[in-house]
Amino acid sequence: MRMYDIIVKKRDGEVLNKEEIYFFIEGYTKGEIPDYQASALTMAIYFQGMTAEETATLTQAMVDSGETIDLSGIEGHKVDKHSTGGVGDKVTFIVGPLVASVGVPVAKMSGRGLGHTGGTLDKLESIKGLEIEMSKEKFIQNVNEHKLAVAGQTGNLAPADKKLYALRDVTGTVDSMPLIAGSIMSKKLASGADSIVLDVKTGSGAFMKTLEDSEALAKEMVSIGSNLGRNTVAVISDMNQPLGFEVGNANEIKEAAEILQGKKVMDLRNLSLEIASHMTLLAEVFDTYEEAYEALEQNLENGKAFQALRTLVQAQGGDVNMIDNLDLLPQAKFDVEVKAEKDGYVSAIDAESIGVAAMYLGAGRATKEDQINHGVGITLKKKIGDKVRASEPLVVLHSDEQSPDASIQKVKEAYTISEEEVLAPELIHKVIK
Amino acid sequence: MRMYDIIVKKRDGEVLNKEEIYFFIEGYTKGEIPDYQASALTMAIYFQGMTAEETATLTQAMVDSGETIDLSGIEGHKVDKHSTGGVGDKVTFIVGPLVASVGVPVAKMSGRGLGHTGGTLDKLESIKGLEIEMSKEKFIQNVNEHKLAVAGQTGNLAPADKKLYALRDVTGTVDSMPLIAGSIMSKKLASGADSIVLDVKTGSGAFMKTLEDSEALAKEMVSIGSNLGRNTVAVISDMNQPLGFEVGNANEIKEAAEILQGKKVMDLRNLSLEIASHMTLLAEVFDTYEEAYEALEQNLENGKAFQALRTLVQAQGGDVNMIDNLDLLPQAKFDVEVKAEKDGYVSAIDAESIGVAAMYLGAGRATKEDQINHGVGITLKKKIGDKVRASEPLVVLHSDEQSPDASIQKVKEAYTISEEEVLAPELIHKVIK
Repeated sequence: MRMYDIIVKKRDGEVLNKEEIYFFIEGYTKGEIPDYQASALTMAIYFQGMTAEETATLTQAMVDSGETIDLSGIEGHKVDKHSTGGVGDKVTFIVGPLVASVGVPVAKMSGRGLGHTGGTLDKLESIKGLEIEMSKEKFIQNVNEHKLAVAGQTGNLAPADKKLYALRDVTGTVDSMPLIAGSIMSKKLASGADSIVLDVKTGSGAFMKTLEDSEALAKEMVSIGSNLGRNTVAVISDMNQPLGFEVGNANEIKEAAEILQGKKVMDLRNLSLEIASHMTLLAEVFDTYEEAYEALEQNLENGKAFQALRTLVQAQGGDVNMIDNLDLLPQAKFDVEVKAEKDGYVSAIDAESIGVAAMYLGAGRATKEDQINHGVGITLKKKIGDKVRASEPLVVLHSDEQSPDASIQKVKEAYTISEEEVLAPELIHKVIK
Repeated sequence: MRMYDIIVKKRDGEVLNKEEIYFFIEGYTKGEIPDYQASALTMAIYFQGMTAEETATLTQAMVDSGETIDLSGIEGHKVDKHSTGGVGDKVTFIVGPLVASVGVPVAKMSGRGLGHTGGTLDKLESIKGLEIEMSKEKFIQNVNEHKLAVAGQTGNLAPADKKLYALRDVTGTVDSMPLIAGSIMSKKLASGADSIVLDVKTGSGAFMKTLEDSEALAKEMVSIGSNLGRNTVAVISDMNQPLGFEVGNANEIKEAAEILQGKKVMDLRNLSLEIASHMTLLAEVFDTYEEAYEALEQNLENGKAFQALRTLVQAQGGDVNMIDNLDLLPQAKFDVEVKAEKDGYVSAIDAESIGVAAMYLGAGRATKEDQINHGVGITLKKKIGDKVRASEPLVVLHSDEQSPDASIQKVKEAYTISEEEVLAPELIHKVIK
């Protein structure tokens, strides 16, 4: 078999078979197939696409290129959750405890990564003492005992994806639906869950800007899951503005904890209930969506979901006082208001710019070496559809500087105020099963 | 400027500007742009194509990537000729002397390369003593004095093309019309002629199998030429079977010399007159095609064309006796007939297989280190449309082995004999100006 023939076959619009896809992925991972052939193939895939079966095979080949996490030591049906990424997305901190509160095991492996704010692990580390490094045995024991544990990802998962993504990133082939879907799913599948719920973001602040593209990606991923024997559901949710009101690290944990205590931040609460409902349905704990939703909503009200968060924090050595009294979480030195310059209605909030403003405050990491400042962040005071008067605050910046000018500027750019009344965007656009 | 943006621009079907094309070609030649980005771009070009202007700019950028040959020391209008390659193509040995015989200077630079038979230089070296290595000064002096010289190509011409072609060859992007046309034309343009006549082969034995593709390639090349200020004419000629009757080295020189002495091997003679007519027209020696054709035909009859060949051989130190008495040219030890196995008409001769059969005899070079055996080769006894009887010879193999079984087998595979009468293929399909 020759890589040359595989490139020409795909270039000519033919379907690659399993042997050819494995030949490529294995050879590329080992360094036997050079970058210049891999980039020619991915460009051919960009133009010719891949069938559902090819995409699933590619995904499985990438899973098989490295280690996989064995969660068989955990009792019950393990459900994982993945978001394609957005600003203010703290849904994981809500659905984890919420799903655990009805007895479904959640074994969450996560990373840090670069971004406007910290990753899941960074945000959790806002809680003093909370330890996310642990042995595999301890991790599995924690999940069995408390139904919930969060740990740093160890092991060399889907190295083929890592190498191929880095190449696609510099050769203009990131924007290929089967390759994006395969990349995301290969990491999820290597993480060992039985079922997966995907939160596919759509809108100006998302990787996929249009509903059409988001839906196409969601369908690809659900198809990969079902082709490879994992039940997968995708929720397409809005990312035309940040999710909830808090963007940062400690303040995102605070907002999540408040939701778990029953607070009604509607977009965040509703999306969390939606995702948690599908997770528990996949775990076959409830018979119907309505039954699941109601039970989960109850646990937000009756304290059980919040109790699951407390248990997680305690089990991983965190200071539970910070959760019981959220004011003890790290806080920045100054609160700086950014005010509206005219009357009107908020018609757009560029989530990307809000993220950048948070990053300027120190909430994120531009290089691996950067330190996260857990206390800084942004609280939105107005969201799309809200009426606003000139000199009313649009946001409050939590800053360690007295005049965070770059962030202020960025926030001003992010907000659009219009004269006509505007409707808030729909939160949940579609569910793909 | 970033290569990434150039890839994405072409991927999205946009037109690259001059700065972008030069950025790519210059950066790639210097090794500043990696292979994996170049292969992604060429695959994008494969799918999206290039405009006539982009193709011309790419060609000029490749010319500018290296040295160019300065022929300004030669008096008169210099016309070059290029063939896209076929089996039995000895047209250069005919049109060179023929065109020189009417006073048009022909400064022919050529290579060796790998192939079924030798290249232009190898074939010429069948003549004892003939020297093709000479100084630039000597080369120009020879052309000025005798109107004709043939020399090995020196200098680093179009290194960008060399590097890019090698990459395309292993990444499935050879078959892109603008890239093929640009590759051929960059080398021709770097060789310094004022005008160019292209012999674009079409048919089973050619790089371009269909007339449609051949015509597209011819048009691309003519367009490049005119965009870059060189008059260019393309003749699309048939390569559904070898050209003439001889395939090899010394025997091809012999056949060419016989044509120059007036022998009527019609396909070869007609194609040579056609190409030479366009060359002399471009050089503005004649006013009309008919006038040119008639004058050239006369010089085949009156000995002037043959005399030009003798002069070339003499000027470059070759043994002119071998030209005066063609039997003195190198000959193989054995003549082995391959006979027809049934009665009928020759309906197809796979030129590629005849080439391979000649190569098995030792006429060509599979690796740079291989030595050419000038005496071996193949003489076709039957061509398409000829009636043949069982046990009549189809070809004679000139071999240094008594039983060249592999070649015999290959020749048998090459010939198709049908019961119905078949017409010989048309020789000249089209002329593109």
